[in-house]
Amino acid sequence: MEPGFADIQAAAERIRPHVHRTPVMTSRTLDARTGKRVFLKCENLQRGGAFKLRGAANFLMSLTEAEAARGVVAFSSGNHAQAVAIAAGIRRTSATLVMPHDAPVSKVEGTRGYGGTVVRFDRMKEDREAIGRRISEESGAVLVPPFDHPWIVAGQGTAVKELLEEVGPVDALAICAGGGGLISGSAIAASAMQPGVRLFGVEPEIANDWALSMAAGKIVEIAPPDTIADGLRSLKPGKLTFAIAQRLVERFVLVSEEEIRETMRFLLERLKILVEPSGAVGLASVLFGKLPPEVRSVGVVLSGGNVDWDVVRGL
Amino acid sequence: MEPGFADIQAAAERIRPHVHRTPVMTSRTLDARTGKRVFLKCENLQRGGAFKLRGAANFLMSLTEAEAARGVVAFSSGNHAQAVAIAAGIRRTSATLVMPHDAPVSKVEGTRGYGGTVVRFDRMKEDREAIGRRISEESGAVLVPPFDHPWIVAGQGTAVKELLEEVGPVDALAICAGGGGLISGSAIAASAMQPGVRLFGVEPEIANDWALSMAAGKIVEIAPPDTIADGLRSLKPGKLTFAIAQRLVERFVLVSEEEIRETMRFLLERLKILVEPSGAVGLASVLFGKLPPEVRSVGVVLSGGNVDWDVVRGL
Repeated sequence: MEPGFADIQAAAERIRPHVHRTPVMTSRTLDARTGKRVFLKCENLQRGGAFKLRGAANFLMSLTEAEAARGVVAFSSGNHAQAVAIAAGIRRTSATLVMPHDAPVSKVEGTRGYGGTVVRFDRMKEDREAIGRRISEESGAVLVPPFDHPWIVAGQGTAVKELLEEVGPVDALAICAGGGGLISGSAIAASAMQPGVRLFGVEPEIANDWALSMAAGKIVEIAPPDTIADGLRSLKPGKLTFAIAQRLVERFVLVSEEEIRETMRFLLERLKILVEPSGAVGLASVLFGKLPPEVRSVGVVLSGGNVDWDVVRGL
Repeated sequence: MEPGFADIQAAAERIRPHVHRTPVMTSRTLDARTGKRVFLKCENLQRGGAFKLRGAANFLMSLTEAEAARGVVAFSSGNHAQAVAIAAGIRRTSATLVMPHDAPVSKVEGTRGYGGTVVRFDRMKEDREAIGRRISEESGAVLVPPFDHPWIVAGQGTAVKELLEEVGPVDALAICAGGGGLISGSAIAASAMQPGVRLFGVEPEIANDWALSMAAGKIVEIAPPDTIADGLRSLKPGKLTFAIAQRLVERFVLVSEEEIRETMRFLLERLKILVEPSGAVGLASVLFGKLPPEVRSVGVVLSGGNVDWDVVRGL
């Protein structure tokens, strides 16, 4: 069942005490370079270092007392894991996080630091959803889906709700897509608040499951992609999130690995903020001219900032 | 003549259209680690990447039409140069910037990017003040002092004015000191807004001209220091700024080069923001226990974010 804008408004009220209202940054340098007014919603400065806490907190806060008492389990490359660990702490319950063997060290350590129990698996050989489901069945813990659930989508939509409340009308939004929780929530919020605003999805060229799926008119699965954007390594769109995107997203644009790296470096050197590869994908589409020229103002969600030091050094 | 709080209030009105009201960041992780409530005024996110625009803009906006028309000149390791270049653009006049041979490339390029004309000199052999004065005499340009002037001090004081307006009462402030424009302006603002607030100056162990001068009760000059904190390589406190600090600053604490580096890395990895070495000095004093334990809440100015890529890679 698709969430509506009322669900995003309710989620915003529910999570307000537990999440940061992150700043919106602008830069004369960025505007001069792109020829657009660019508004950056800094979810890299969110608790846990990513927008993911919004959905996870909304999910945990929506559980009944009995459900919450059973503990929760989640599978995630990293940011969802950290978010669920934090949200479990807020809800005063326990969390088990199933994370791939090649998840960034910072995200694994962050998850443990927030009190979560981490279980590792091999992303190339094992099915993380099956592992998560098994743990859920064995322990009775509630599975917190990473994106394909109305509570998660509604929570993620609160970031763009805040962005548009703060900056007013924009011509377009450029939003990255992994499983699609952020882009579908953003689309619901934006189309309710500013009917007619143009919505562009952005993903790495080598992780183009959304672009392929949109072109095919149905969900297309790709092989595990080796993109630097570890948060966007999903193999296919979610069912719920794809249905929402099909209806509300104009199209998906693609950025190269080098464009992602250059955008990260631009954000560090010029804007003084650290954004993870997945978090830089949306702005990369603006910096490297992937949006139509008639888009004069654009909102971008810098979705996260959790990146291993080696990646920063290698930029 | 020492500026008063009224001068800081007037400066705030004067520069308001031209500077960012920078965000104040907090972090549960930081608070847990230090055992204090820490409020970070993010002047690394200021236009030009440092608080310096506040003083430079106040100076330039305070000139008469005739003075402004003659152009301006300034000597600086970098951030003051960038600030004067931007302020000259705001005032629609020209700026010549005298910069040391070993100033960070990013600051030299930034200064040129903002439309300033850069003249280089050898910091170990030549006297930058003499060069600046000669250019001023030859061209008729107005010299914009980097710190020791009431207009500059009043402008720099606006950062802490904003910080305290936003966060309310704190036990203490920890402020870095190079020439002393920031710490003296901060001291005037803080003691007017929150009488009794404790003021701590912070500087690198190997650039301890303020600590030595405070201990001696008079201005002491040191040899050119090789600290990573390029913005704090001043050889001695300014006359005006020292007089203000003697009256209002409780004492100066020192941090090591390694503590500065670790603080920069902490800010990047945990808070996702890039702060230059000088800008990390204030927080280093909090992170590494240099403040009295009874200080339970502390405001810190992250003074700037202009740092060469090689320095980031080497952290």
